[in-house]
Amino acid sequence: MQTVRVALGERGYPIHIGAGLLDRADLLAPLLPQPRVAVVTSATVAPLYLDRLARALAGAGVACVPIVLPDGEAHKDWATLNGVFGALLERRCDRGTTLVALGGGVVGDLAGFAAATYQRGVPFVQVPTTLLAQVDSSVGGKTAINHPLGKNMIGAFHQPRAVLADMDTLATLPPAELRAGLAEVIKHGAIRDAPFFDWLEANLDALLGLDRNALAHAVKRSVEIKAAVVALDERETGPRALLNFGHTFGHAIEAGLGYGAWLHGEAVAAGMVMAAELSVRLGTLERTAADRLRRLLERAGLPVAGPALGPERYLDLMAVDKKAEAGRIRFILLDRLGEARIAGSVPADALRATLTACSGK
Amino acid sequence: MQTVRVALGERGYPIHIGAGLLDRADLLAPLLPQPRVAVVTSATVAPLYLDRLARALAGAGVACVPIVLPDGEAHKDWATLNGVFGALLERRCDRGTTLVALGGGVVGDLAGFAAATYQRGVPFVQVPTTLLAQVDSSVGGKTAINHPLGKNMIGAFHQPRAVLADMDTLATLPPAELRAGLAEVIKHGAIRDAPFFDWLEANLDALLGLDRNALAHAVKRSVEIKAAVVALDERETGPRALLNFGHTFGHAIEAGLGYGAWLHGEAVAAGMVMAAELSVRLGTLERTAADRLRRLLERAGLPVAGPALGPERYLDLMAVDKKAEAGRIRFILLDRLGEARIAGSVPADALRATLTACSGK
Repeated sequence: MQTVRVALGERGYPIHIGAGLLDRADLLAPLLPQPRVAVVTSATVAPLYLDRLARALAGAGVACVPIVLPDGEAHKDWATLNGVFGALLERRCDRGTTLVALGGGVVGDLAGFAAATYQRGVPFVQVPTTLLAQVDSSVGGKTAINHPLGKNMIGAFHQPRAVLADMDTLATLPPAELRAGLAEVIKHGAIRDAPFFDWLEANLDALLGLDRNALAHAVKRSVEIKAAVVALDERETGPRALLNFGHTFGHAIEAGLGYGAWLHGEAVAAGMVMAAELSVRLGTLERTAADRLRRLLERAGLPVAGPALGPERYLDLMAVDKKAEAGRIRFILLDRLGEARIAGSVPADALRATLTACSGK
Repeated sequence: MQTVRVALGERGYPIHIGAGLLDRADLLAPLLPQPRVAVVTSATVAPLYLDRLARALAGAGVACVPIVLPDGEAHKDWATLNGVFGALLERRCDRGTTLVALGGGVVGDLAGFAAATYQRGVPFVQVPTTLLAQVDSSVGGKTAINHPLGKNMIGAFHQPRAVLADMDTLATLPPAELRAGLAEVIKHGAIRDAPFFDWLEANLDALLGLDRNALAHAVKRSVEIKAAVVALDERETGPRALLNFGHTFGHAIEAGLGYGAWLHGEAVAAGMVMAAELSVRLGTLERTAADRLRRLLERAGLPVAGPALGPERYLDLMAVDKKAEAGRIRFILLDRLGEARIAGSVPADALRATLTACSGK
């Protein structure tokens, strides 16, 4: 097991990465104000891992209230959240009950927002079971649900007390979800760490083949990069926006197709290609670097073009993206592989040309 | 105008108290990251004060998105909150848009929770128009909505950037709401300031007669007391619980009758009589002090007994109160007028006897 620490002062916490962590209730028990947790999980993950975690907790004297959610991004909404509140109230969970998210990004985001707002905030632990959640959504304290008019529009910053990323859980992950997680791994290299990007080019086949050591390294390096950025800027007023590379386009794809049509990582992959193309058109990135990014994503089996929504529909969708400032759209551009930058504004013609070049006809 | 400062470091803020403050956009404009606000108000308050505030803001170059909510505690729920999110998204409000709550406690609690969670948090200003909101709910950063299974069960701590308590708005307040506000004023004297309690006994008639100077003094002293307690304990892990004197019983009354049947202040008044009676039965408070509290509340036209729910129903209702710890019910008791204390546990027989003595048959 390796541990990365997120440096946020009194809100700092450890991210443990390794195999067999679902059995390690000893990592959780000392963090709990009360020997009771509510484990929020999904219909897919519950049969795979809930009993194992609950048994380990019981062995440490911790009681477990299971709350099983329907699967998928379409359920990351108020109705599902309200079901969690109802279950917590019916079981008389109080401010000392810790919420444990066992699952992917949807479970983590929703359970985290429940933890942020149930009785004005209860302790929270993340046990991410997808690669995407391990390298991205479980780190940094962002929690949210979707609104019909926009993704993640309702949420809070609420840091977990700990994250347990168990490599064992990746064995049951559908291949498409593994690839979607790799999109965010590749993003971390692209925005912040050129040697890691090189490593990914060299080790992509091992990652796709579920090589444990390769996966653990990819998770650890991703988490280190993300944790470092988050520590600089917990509330996303500045550099944290770099982590949104590919996301302004990606969110437009997700909203335009309806949440859940594409996996988040798939939309981000196409969005990164678009953002790189925009960087090339604005003269900040060399074409060869954009091509390397596209090829790596393609090798990972990820989409490298957006769906054919038409440029104007993309622009409409991006204007309500929450990363917009005072009505302006903000973009993350690349200067080179390993170095990203926040652009305050972007000429509309370059944006339209990019959308035309990088989305289906 | 007088100003009380809430000492919470970088989250500290001023509470301005006086007449004509709705016209003082100069107090707000410097706090806004962007010259646009969304004013959340109620169907009752909008026709009285919305235009006046919007005109003042327009004079300072600040645009105003009005959002008018249906009236009453029954609407402090997810459906209403979601309407606020929808309006903000339709008007493309972003993270720099400040939410202004213009109204009573329901508007302030709901708008504050909207500000805490819209796009993971936007700036917030309180313009409370009821005595209750001025002396209580607008101070301290507690925001919430109700759940069918419990009052204020879903919420967040989100401090405003400023509070404007305009005495002018109390002129249009229904008398029952003035009295309900006085319940919390009396609470502040009872838990923390015996000379203020004496002053309230001497000046109750002036307050009921809407004497401006008396009201401004009562608001200022209440706010000072509450701000001092909040500064000690922003997240309610310790002494802030003292402010819940009368509220464990009061919340049970509100939940038992259905939200909105009694005003919050009315429920708290009866709850304080119950908490004082419990203090007498446990031997910590003299009977004469409990009688003084009861008489002052009675003179203010407030209920001094709970509805006839039956002791067991009260106990059921109190066990899901969010002030409970690990399934235990926590009570605020008085040692004398001006001095309150948190009781970790209370004998069930004294509690049942109190409920029988202090609620209708």
